[in-house]
Amino acid sequence: MFYGVALQSRLMLGTAQYPSPAVLRAAIAASGTQVITVSLRREGPEGARFREIVAGSGCRILPNTAGCHSAREAVTTARMARELFGTNWIKLEVIGHADTLQPDPFALVEAARILCAEGFEVFPYTTEDLVLGERLVEAGCRVLMPWGAPIGSGQGLRNVEGLRAMRAHFPDVPLVIDAGIGTPSDAARAMEMGFDAVLLNTAVARAGNPVAMARAFARAVEAGRLGFEAGLMPRRDMARPSTPVFGMAELG
Amino acid sequence: MFYGVALQSRLMLGTAQYPSPAVLRAAIAASGTQVITVSLRREGPEGARFREIVAGSGCRILPNTAGCHSAREAVTTARMARELFGTNWIKLEVIGHADTLQPDPFALVEAARILCAEGFEVFPYTTEDLVLGERLVEAGCRVLMPWGAPIGSGQGLRNVEGLRAMRAHFPDVPLVIDAGIGTPSDAARAMEMGFDAVLLNTAVARAGNPVAMARAFARAVEAGRLGFEAGLMPRRDMARPSTPVFGMAELG
Amino acid sequence: MFYGVALQSRLMLGTAQYPSPAVLRAAIAASGTQVITVSLRREGPEGARFREIVAGSGCRILPNTAGCHSAREAVTTARMARELFGTNWIKLEVIGHADTLQPDPFALVEAARILCAEGFEVFPYTTEDLVLGERLVEAGCRVLMPWGAPIGSGQGLRNVEGLRAMRAHFPDVPLVIDAGIGTPSDAARAMEMGFDAVLLNTAVARAGNPVAMARAFARAVEAGRLGFEAGLMPRRDMARPSTPVFGMAELG
Amino acid sequence: MFYGVALQSRLMLGTAQYPSPAVLRAAIAASGTQVITVSLRREGPEGARFREIVAGSGCRILPNTAGCHSAREAVTTARMARELFGTNWIKLEVIGHADTLQPDPFALVEAARILCAEGFEVFPYTTEDLVLGERLVEAGCRVLMPWGAPIGSGQGLRNVEGLRAMRAHFPDVPLVIDAGIGTPSDAARAMEMGFDAVLLNTAVARAGNPVAMARAFARAVEAGRLGFEAGLMPRRDMARPSTPVFGMAELG
Repeated sequence: MFYGVALQSRLMLGTAQYPSPAVLRAAIAASGTQVITVSLRREGPEGARFREIVAGSGCRILPNTAGCHSAREAVTTARMARELFGTNWIKLEVIGHADTLQPDPFALVEAARILCAEGFEVFPYTTEDLVLGERLVEAGCRVLMPWGAPIGSGQGLRNVEGLRAMRAHFPDVPLVIDAGIGTPSDAARAMEMGFDAVLLNTAVARAGNPVAMARAFARAVEAGRLGFEAGLMPRRDMARPSTPVFGMAELG
Repeated sequence: MFYGVALQSRLMLGTAQYPSPAVLRAAIAASGTQVITVSLRREGPEGARFREIVAGSGCRILPNTAGCHSAREAVTTARMARELFGTNWIKLEVIGHADTLQPDPFALVEAARILCAEGFEVFPYTTEDLVLGERLVEAGCRVLMPWGAPIGSGQGLRNVEGLRAMRAHFPDVPLVIDAGIGTPSDAARAMEMGFDAVLLNTAVARAGNPVAMARAFARAVEAGRLGFEAGLMPRRDMARPSTPVFGMAELG
Repeated sequence: MFYGVALQSRLMLGTAQYPSPAVLRAAIAASGTQVITVSLRREGPEGARFREIVAGSGCRILPNTAGCHSAREAVTTARMARELFGTNWIKLEVIGHADTLQPDPFALVEAARILCAEGFEVFPYTTEDLVLGERLVEAGCRVLMPWGAPIGSGQGLRNVEGLRAMRAHFPDVPLVIDAGIGTPSDAARAMEMGFDAVLLNTAVARAGNPVAMARAFARAVEAGRLGFEAGLMPRRDMARPSTPVFGMAELG
Repeated sequence: MFYGVALQSRLMLGTAQYPSPAVLRAAIAASGTQVITVSLRREGPEGARFREIVAGSGCRILPNTAGCHSAREAVTTARMARELFGTNWIKLEVIGHADTLQPDPFALVEAARILCAEGFEVFPYTTEDLVLGERLVEAGCRVLMPWGAPIGSGQGLRNVEGLRAMRAHFPDVPLVIDAGIGTPSDAARAMEMGFDAVLLNTAVARAGNPVAMARAFARAVEAGRLGFEAGLMPRRDMARPSTPVFGMAELG
């Protein structure tokens, strides 16, 4: 449940960097996603075409504040997004670093406080920092979106122990791995660790075949979630036979 | 193509260790597999029940020589299996070690030579050793089944670089990761690396819910294969923005 | 150079958890360290004995604010430490979490600002967060001490990519890996990555033989630093022969 | 004890690929090694110069059969080496693959049998394969030299679990990690895992500064061994404070 909304699909999809609008549309369909993130900052004729696709997708829109580097800028962008898209949902990105696109913990909390107070339902793009996570929850966030790795890096889950600690620390807060996912197996692993959903963009948009890759991630997210719910086997240091022996070959 | 047989599903399933025959039957169905491995060594009333399930599954049978510790024993077991199951297919296991269930490279090649000469279509359970793989191919094997990790360990792919080298070294030999897979994400990763299929048993049979886990692995294998075919994004050290910016928020 | 002080040894040592004062003294000597951290909070007869060892070690004292959970508490503790130990150096710990001992980014910056303004030379125990690091530098810190992993966990460097990014981002700030180091090889690796020093405690104090382990870490830190300066060989995907062949065996 | 010889240094050094004879000589001295491997195949004037350095090093010579691709070739080379260097020690390399320099398990056992029967004291370059290891021991080898990774790759220990299993399986056989070591921390880790020594070449010879790197590895091997003997702290999932608190700051 993300702010009271139940979703069938646990895959959320970004909409940037696709080779063409047609591919974007097809990838959204293939992914089975119900939530797509969109940047406010699409202007001109291309922007119109883009918004048409978004509207036609049947997905819930999660506008984002990508490209914002201060709380003020992010808040202003969020307000514009609410007006334009008619939703209280906002994916809050406040980037502290142009090179790694790391969130700015300080500006993030500041912007989250303002937006939550204004009735926004905030999905903050954050790190695996537990204290930062707590501050965001205190600010009113009911979902957290920790990164797997820097945006666009495809490094997967680069601090697995830190993410495990985060999952354990916030058992009741929906947690979405956002950014860094590079492969379907990365996404499956995140789900096996008990995360509630995965948001990705580059790994699909920049795949050789984005539509097929969207389908791959859809399956991977399902696989990981099913595996998590089904109860993974324990990992063993010592091997045991998986084919017990009920008889003996007759040796001539 | 495995010895001329084209399969829709790239997941092969073992049949040992299930909590009950009913669960085994349901897990086979949920997995979508077309190939199940069975041990010859099932005797008595339970054995009859077991063979009934196997026959009713609609799957192709891949008998195995699990529990054999010498070439002679494995060859004898393979011959009995051919008679009993009416197939030339044989999953050749010759175990050198009770504790790790590591293949015995020497006995494996010896048994493979004999069996190939007798018209068997041999699926050897092997390590990632390139020279051993070559010997098996020279012996007549047209498929290789390298381990991911020791049988039943659930350690996943414990020598990723070695397995990559093996995939690169045998571009035209169907390679099936057999043993060690613990999680759906392990299976997806094996497929992303270009392996042709995955064979597993414990990870499903010993899951909290084997039927749901069988479904999870079916999705994971599809996800990994689709991802491999779709072309994974390159991994980057430096992050790049995945949401390009087309405009600027108006700051009051 | 740490606040203008050049050190011969790049190993800093904590003084808690040793089995006895004698072992502590011997471990300090064996480590070759020139900087030891001490907690203010040692009272009573044991405290006197402890301070005697510290004074007799010949090491520079780096008092810490271990156990502080707010900026106010840390600042007060730092002031008391300055009085007691007669040094402006302070290892600033503000713990956000009892269970993981993760730094509190917000209180850390707040306390660092106050202490730097009061003339302290602050060594902040921080995470690998780049933005947090920048704020600490802006506050006046001339050294940063990122964690390898949670205090006392012995997990080593659990976010290697994040730490690499931090090293690259602060080329001119002395960076000391503080906490999480479990093994000599962990310490060597940190040094190979270009970190300026390593601070550890549990891995020595809780070793089977703390004195021998102190010696091990001394060697490891030297090894890693020498390796870093000597220029590590590039890692290769493809192997190459390390013994080139200048002749041929005569085969009879 | 390696064939009855006790060594002070647990670092063995190869002698190929150095930028100059002078650097080789200095690196040997800096490493503190007592065993150097040399290839028979050095002919001509350079060969004479090389043998002079080797003789002057004061080290025990461990001739190797590098570049041999069959048992017969290796055996012939070993015999020539015994004559030339006047030692029964032989590092037995039989390479199955030009690209990865992987040992050929079959030819290796064959050659080991012949050489042990002829009174050689064989140090076989092998994989982490347990069955292969047993065959070599049965053939008369009293030392095993498993690879960390392919020769010259600098990948470190690429199958840590497999190497751990090998160490556990051969508690009484001296095991030397040979090949693949890229960094001092790799060497330290091998020693922490309980291996008896490390043999390396490329990581020193191809370092920016080979002499300094030789010193780095000397320290690293000592560090790892000391750490192993001193008893490494247990790794914990949950962090614990390393600075226990004996008092409380007075908050004004």
